[in-house]
Amino acid sequence: MRATVMYGAHDVRVETVPDAKIVEPTDALVRVTRACICGSDLWPYNSMPASAIGNRMGHEFIGIVESIGVTVRTVKKGDVVVAPFAWSDGTCEFCQQGLQTSCLHGGWWGGTELDGGQGEAVRVPQADGTLVALPVGPDHALMPSLLTLSDVMGTGHHAALRANVRPRRIAAVVGDGAVGLCGVIAARHLGAEQIIMLGRHPDRIALARRFGATDVVSERGDAAIERVRELTGGLGAHSVLECVGHGESMRTAVGIARAGGAVGRVGVPQETTIPNAQPTFYANITIAGGPAPVRAYMHELMPDVLEGRIEPGLVFDRTTNIDGVPDGYRAMNDREAIKVMIEF
Amino acid sequence: MRATVMYGAHDVRVETVPDAKIVEPTDALVRVTRACICGSDLWPYNSMPASAIGNRMGHEFIGIVESIGVTVRTVKKGDVVVAPFAWSDGTCEFCQQGLQTSCLHGGWWGGTELDGGQGEAVRVPQADGTLVALPVGPDHALMPSLLTLSDVMGTGHHAALRANVRPRRIAAVVGDGAVGLCGVIAARHLGAEQIIMLGRHPDRIALARRFGATDVVSERGDAAIERVRELTGGLGAHSVLECVGHGESMRTAVGIARAGGAVGRVGVPQETTIPNAQPTFYANITIAGGPAPVRAYMHELMPDVLEGRIEPGLVFDRTTNIDGVPDGYRAMNDREAIKVMIEF
Repeated sequence: MRATVMYGAHDVRVETVPDAKIVEPTDALVRVTRACICGSDLWPYNSMPASAIGNRMGHEFIGIVESIGVTVRTVKKGDVVVAPFAWSDGTCEFCQQGLQTSCLHGGWWGGTELDGGQGEAVRVPQADGTLVALPVGPDHALMPSLLTLSDVMGTGHHAALRANVRPRRIAAVVGDGAVGLCGVIAARHLGAEQIIMLGRHPDRIALARRFGATDVVSERGDAAIERVRELTGGLGAHSVLECVGHGESMRTAVGIARAGGAVGRVGVPQETTIPNAQPTFYANITIAGGPAPVRAYMHELMPDVLEGRIEPGLVFDRTTNIDGVPDGYRAMNDREAIKVMIEF
Repeated sequence: MRATVMYGAHDVRVETVPDAKIVEPTDALVRVTRACICGSDLWPYNSMPASAIGNRMGHEFIGIVESIGVTVRTVKKGDVVVAPFAWSDGTCEFCQQGLQTSCLHGGWWGGTELDGGQGEAVRVPQADGTLVALPVGPDHALMPSLLTLSDVMGTGHHAALRANVRPRRIAAVVGDGAVGLCGVIAARHLGAEQIIMLGRHPDRIALARRFGATDVVSERGDAAIERVRELTGGLGAHSVLECVGHGESMRTAVGIARAGGAVGRVGVPQETTIPNAQPTFYANITIAGGPAPVRAYMHELMPDVLEGRIEPGLVFDRTTNIDGVPDGYRAMNDREAIKVMIEF
């Protein structure tokens, strides 16, 4: 089968790899119908040391179950399924609490050991705990939005929940990538009255406004903090969604949070410490978040997608086939595209 | 009147200062009957640069209202009142949310501008928002426990709330000072099933056990983290109360938190960043807390004290008069005393 392999920074190739197959009785074999490239894939795209083996890529996909291991019960051959960006057993104490990204027997797609979503098929470990069957066919018009339940919509939702977004509150979203845009959707959906998007790309800002952003701040650093203060009566935002992970974006996020407010961070942190230990202490600002347990949110968000209350699939502004994946990385890295969908 | 003034590290004096008096119509004048020395007073005691003016000290006190400004409505002459460690108007949006330590018109006792609690009388700004009348006389046997509502009991309670202590969960308390000990009380009171005290002073550990600690860890650093992991099935504590503020104690606190857990920090941070940005992210650990809005907790905790459900006054293991205050600082700093009460 063909799949995407990253051999180092800016070195993404589509290659023939061994066919995915069932190994454990808890596995399912899924033929991928749609996948996508993630903003987080750009971290290794810009920094991965050269590797002779390469890493299989992709952690967001929808597909059709081809076969299942003997113990799998919740999905069957022919089901259209969506996979979360981490696989999980669904039974450990963390899964039962809805924190599947800390599953005691789970893990991450791709790398050197497992298939990735950016390929024709995937062996899915712990299929019962991982996959969720979709009630629609593989070519349904809402497929792009359903695909975002793999990661970016659930991740934006997690940021909003951890930032404690509530009706009549002020939310601010740091980062205008697909996750930040989905954060706007989530903040709106959870009832925020004012939603301030911190971003600077016109296409993304336009989409943020469509999703419900009421204000846009395109300054950076201290100027951005100052501008958000102006927009919030001098007090800052109750809820800040940190959707980047850079040191500067995190400093902005904690700097614009109101006393008693919360920062929900979902951008993978690039620094080893969290800034502003003392100002955040004196203002009782909560810092929360991490990898979103999107598996926990799928059942909640799927009806919102299917019934049209949210349309996160609009974050896809480019579609390619598997041969176009390397150029898709380039386009996202160059900010030509917000998020690239791969159709198989 | 006589009051405590700190002129620099290890230079605490009891001096005659101008009598406290009503200045604003929202003030009350309180004659102090009991006060105490706080662990946080030891930060300047060890580090304050020499000052010709000196800082008035003390932020925890109970006293009797001597007179009130013309607009004060909630307390009257003769009332026995307890003051929180920060004064607040009770009406701003933060006070209304129960975050009085961020009051838009509030502030802190002592320093160069205001009276401190370690003196014979205090001018109390914003008396209606600040003071709470006690339903007992000034010599009631529970007065030491009621005095802890000024700070340490409310602060331990805040740490436990922010660390999300709940029934049947595991709590860990970093720090065996008066706040940590009150954190044990709070964790027990909120239903924690296992309470691990990290501390090493035998007298404090004995009191922690009396308050409900089920386990004691006296190791430090990585060894402490390892020991807590052993005590928690390898997973760490759901709720960690950080009651010190040192860099090392914060590293321990985030290191012993379980995935999906929370650190409630109430120790004043001595470092400018929060450690472990990446491990806490991957494990979805929440970091919360700050100066406790003890004013918000007084009405909740007072019945617990008056009806004997909690007895935080046991943290006082030494009593002095105002002349003994300088030696009280020394005794607390030398770990001879857990917490020193001052009777006037």
